[in-house]
Formats: sequence, structure tokens, C-alpha cells
Amino acid sequence: MGRDLSDAFDRSRVMITGGLGFIGSALAIRLVELGSEVLLVDSLIPEYGGNRFNIAPVSDRVRVEIADIRDAAKLQLLLPGCDYLFNLAGQTSHLDSMSDPVTDLEINCRAQLTLLEACRAVNPHCTIVFASTRQIYGKPQYLPVDERHGLHPVDVNGVNKMAGEAYHILYHDVYGMKATALRLTNTYGPRMRIKDARQTFVGIWLRRVLEGQSFEVWGGEQKRDFTYIDDAVEAFLLAAIVPETKGRVFNLGGEQAVSLTELAGLVVAANGGGDFVQRSFPAERKRIDIGDYYADDSLFRRTTGWQPAIPLAEGLARSLAYFRANLGRYV
Amino acid sequence: MGRDLSDAFDRSRVMITGGLGFIGSALAIRLVELGSEVLLVDSLIPEYGGNRFNIAPVSDRVRVEIADIRDAAKLQLLLPGCDYLFNLAGQTSHLDSMSDPVTDLEINCRAQLTLLEACRAVNPHCTIVFASTRQIYGKPQYLPVDERHGLHPVDVNGVNKMAGEAYHILYHDVYGMKATALRLTNTYGPRMRIKDARQTFVGIWLRRVLEGQSFEVWGGEQKRDFTYIDDAVEAFLLAAIVPETKGRVFNLGGEQAVSLTELAGLVVAANGGGDFVQRSFPAERKRIDIGDYYADDSLFRRTTGWQPAIPLAEGLARSLAYFRANLGRYV
Repeated sequence: MGRDLSDAFDRSRVMITGGLGFIGSALAIRLVELGSEVLLVDSLIPEYGGNRFNIAPVSDRVRVEIADIRDAAKLQLLLPGCDYLFNLAGQTSHLDSMSDPVTDLEINCRAQLTLLEACRAVNPHCTIVFASTRQIYGKPQYLPVDERHGLHPVDVNGVNKMAGEAYHILYHDVYGMKATALRLTNTYGPRMRIKDARQTFVGIWLRRVLEGQSFEVWGGEQKRDFTYIDDAVEAFLLAAIVPETKGRVFNLGGEQAVSLTELAGLVVAANGGGDFVQRSFPAERKRIDIGDYYADDSLFRRTTGWQPAIPLAEGLARSLAYFRANLGRYV
Repeated sequence: MGRDLSDAFDRSRVMITGGLGFIGSALAIRLVELGSEVLLVDSLIPEYGGNRFNIAPVSDRVRVEIADIRDAAKLQLLLPGCDYLFNLAGQTSHLDSMSDPVTDLEINCRAQLTLLEACRAVNPHCTIVFASTRQIYGKPQYLPVDERHGLHPVDVNGVNKMAGEAYHILYHDVYGMKATALRLTNTYGPRMRIKDARQTFVGIWLRRVLEGQSFEVWGGEQKRDFTYIDDAVEAFLLAAIVPETKGRVFNLGGEQAVSLTELAGLVVAANGGGDFVQRSFPAERKRIDIGDYYADDSLFRRTTGWQPAIPLAEGLARSLAYFRANLGRYV
């Protein structure tokens, strides 16, 4: 797809919300390579994923606006002229969504609606790809989970992301806006948040093992799937350019599902050493645990030709190499 | 169930949001009969369903607080001591939700979350029944629609009601709160809003026929189901007292599904005269039309023993008699 992508993105104008975050910055770096003019919007809220260092390789070739997506008036000023909007800004912590549900609603729900309204008002032909999440399925009723699976969110974040996604599809159906949603599973790789477990538990595992400390595996038997960042970036780009994705929702998965214990073993192996302890679930996590989850992402593969290229062991090795070289920027 | 209901509600303390509205006021009148101490909370926003005349039969036996459910601090003051909360306040107009999506979100989504948070803080043992809507299913993929049907809202109101409902179920699952949601179809009867079509098209039909004017039927072939108000009230009361309903979502339907043309004929017959014209859908309605809809409500019937008692012809006759006697209070 390399040539198709540069045909589509060369000289295109792209806006990325959450653009200093993990996925946003990786997307920005790739888009600069492809010849896009890139505008990154990020609030840099400390608990969230934004980090200026993430865009170091392209910092002189992108434009950065520090703005909160809750500021609809600001967004409305930035949107005109964009060809593509990758809408990644969000509050991602499940525990934070329970302790401060209204903030989660303001960001993941209300701001999505006001962003779509702004887009409809000033740039209705913009192509939009929204970062949704597998969290909205809740505890799987069957495996692998396909897009027909019912939605039973297990935390406030899940409810709000479900609504945020639904607005995007609605604005396609009613107003013809070119919106697509990708339901992400655990995305991992260079530039992810490793300071804590606010994005995914993988982040804190990587940090601990790099710091020579043992990390904790809660449970261990649960199977999960993982998407390496470069594969996720490719998925966002394909979702943007393939016409058949418009108005639709797609799962994104990985190459294979592994148990958390297996993953922990792969992390230690990729690091060439380290150790972990298995613990039973803390009570406040147990309430919202979903057991095994892995996606059926064949619909997205079929529709766009996407397939993940980076095996888990390789992706973990690349991640560890990146953070080993830049640890001070992330902890 | 008569005896069970008065056992449950006699001397109970009940709060109803949207308490001066169509369903809220009917529920209040019935609860006063059953011996409850009733507190009605209503914002009396003119475009919504609240009407002080609705509670005329019990106005000296209920307490009324004019308050907006967006005012969480106020709600938190009113909640302590309530045994039951019937949570009916909402913005119900589909067209208004498209022209002013943020207000719909504030009421149907954000205020539901803050109400649940308030309840969790000051009265976590309160039993809650939430008025949800069949609108969240969107265009039926099969008929009759049961609760496993996917949710594909066709307007902003549908997305927000979907989220509002999901918060209730979530607060049961995570915090053990005794919440139940009823997905209502077209509810009709005395005290409904007949000034315009903001609640359902049936309201404006009744008004027109009573005023000796012809009414408009958009389309005509679409099948729909209808719940008479007394049956809906019984359903809310049963949902509150049957333990097996907690944390669950139920469809509410009617005795039979009829086409809009058939319904129009029944309205004219019940009125002893009148006429209507069939029109094709206006463009802005067509976008969000869902075709046939009727519910499979067997899960609720099985779980609670509920069944609708009032046939459509009878319910329409009672509605017309009520509004004929009180037309000036409703137009």
C-alpha cells in the first residue's frame, strides 16, 4: 500500500487531535514522511498521553497547537482546510473515569459532539477517523469478538467512548460526513505512556523491566491481543483513504492472542532479563475486569487489505530499545 | 398485582424526575392512591412535557420542586430518604436533538450521570427505574425487536439516551445500585403533550381531531406499537418492586402493532368523526425514519407478570375524552 498512501497523503492537510500522544505522534511522523502538512492539537494534560518529546524527529516539520478539544471555538478555527482529521484525543484511564466521571464525559463524549458540530459547520467534507476502543464491548460473550457483538461497557469511560463513536457514525448517516471508527485493542510500542498504567498495563511493565525492577501481572491466564504502533498507524491511514470504510466501525486486533503470563515472558525475553510476580486482582480492578478478549478483525482486513506486520516479540524488542535510549523522557 | 403494589408503595417515599410530565404525573396520581409520599421534580421548560395541570387531582397531596436535573447539587439535596426514584426527566424531541445537540447531551447524558453520582453519594440503596426509549435501536434489523437487538441510534437523542441508560446499568454492575431501564415505545393517553409532535406524533393527531381539523399521516404503512399510559404506569411500578429486574433493560410494547393508517382510522373512529391526509415524508424526517418497529416485550412480561390491559381503541377513546374536557389546558 506504500504508493497508494503517498498518493493520498502527499500535500494533504492533516489535523490530529491528541497529536502529541502515543498514536498521534507516530501518525504525525509517518504523515510527514508521506508528504502531509500536519497540525497537531494536544492539551498536554499531565495525566494523559501527550509528550513533546514524542515528535522530536519531526518537530520542525509539524505545527503544534496546545488546545483542549473541549474548546469547541478553538477547534472551529483550526478545522477549515483540513483534508483529514485523525481524532485521537481522549481520556483513557478506566479508573479515572470512575473517580471523576464527569471529566471523562466532557472529553470522551461532549467534546466529540462539539468537534463533529464544528466540523459540520466549517469543513463538512473532511475525512475523519476516530479512535474507539474494544472496552465498549465489555466482557466478551463469545471469542473472537466481532463488530456484531453487543456493547456492554464496564466503566464510565466505556459508556462515553461508545457515545463518542456513535456520534461519528450518526454524523455520517445523517449528514454524509466521511467518518470511520476503529475499535483499538492494546496498542503498544515506542512513545506509549510508560509512567503508569493509564494507557495500558504494558507501559508500566516496560518501565519496570527497564529499571531493573520486577513487574506485577494481575491474574495471568487472561488472553489479550496487541497491535504494534506501526501497524496501528497503517490502519488509521488505510481507514482514512479506503472509501468503503465510511460510516462504519471496525475492530483492530493483532497477529495472535496471548495470555498475560506469556506476554510477561516475552517482555523478559525481549529485554534479555528481568522478572515479574503474579498477583490476584485488586478488588477495585476485579469489578471491571473482562476476562479474555481478542478481536476478530477480518472485516477491516478484508475491507482495506490491512494486516499486522510486526510480531509481538519484535514489537516488544523495538519498544524496549526505544525506551532504553530515551527513558528519561518518559518517566 | 394490586395488593403487592400497595404493600410495596404504601408509606414509601418516591421521587419522580419529570414529575409534571405525561408519564410522571400519571405515576404520581397512582402512587398517591397507593399511599406513597411523592416528590415531583420538574424544570417546566416550556418545550418539554411538564404541565402543572397534569397533577390537578393530587396537587394538595404531592410535593413539587421546580428544579432542573442538570442542577446536581439540588438533586443531591432532594435524594436522601427516597425509597424509589422514577427517573423520567428528559429532552424527547428528535428534531431538537439535531438542531441543538449539546442541550440534548446535557440533559439526557450528563445529567443522568450526575444524578447517579448524587444518588450513589447520598442514597445508594434507592431503587431507580429509568425511562429509556426504543429509539436507541434505530432501524430494526428484525421484528419484533427484542433486547438483544443491536443499538444503532439514528439521531443525537438516541445516542444520548443510549448513554444515559448505560450509566444506570453500569452503576448497578459496579456499585450494586438497584437500577432498571424500560425501553418505551409510543406511550399515549391523558396528559400527554398534544401541543405539537415533540413527544410522539399521536399527540398532535389527537389535538387536530379534537379541534375539528384534519391531521397529517406521514407515510402510513409503517407499523408501530403503543402503550396506554395506565399500562406504562403499571410497568414502572412492577419494574421497581420485582427484584429480578435490577441491572437489566426491558422493552415495553403494546397489545398489537398497527400501521399508522390503521391508527389514524382508530383515532377518527374513537372521536366519532374527523379526517386525515396521508403525505410522503418531509426530507428532514426521512433521514431519521426507521420504518416498521414493534417490540418483543416477552422478557418483561415473563419477569414481572406485566401485561397491557387497555386495548388501543379504548385507550384512544379515554384520551380523547380527557382532552375534550381539558383542551384549554393543553394547547
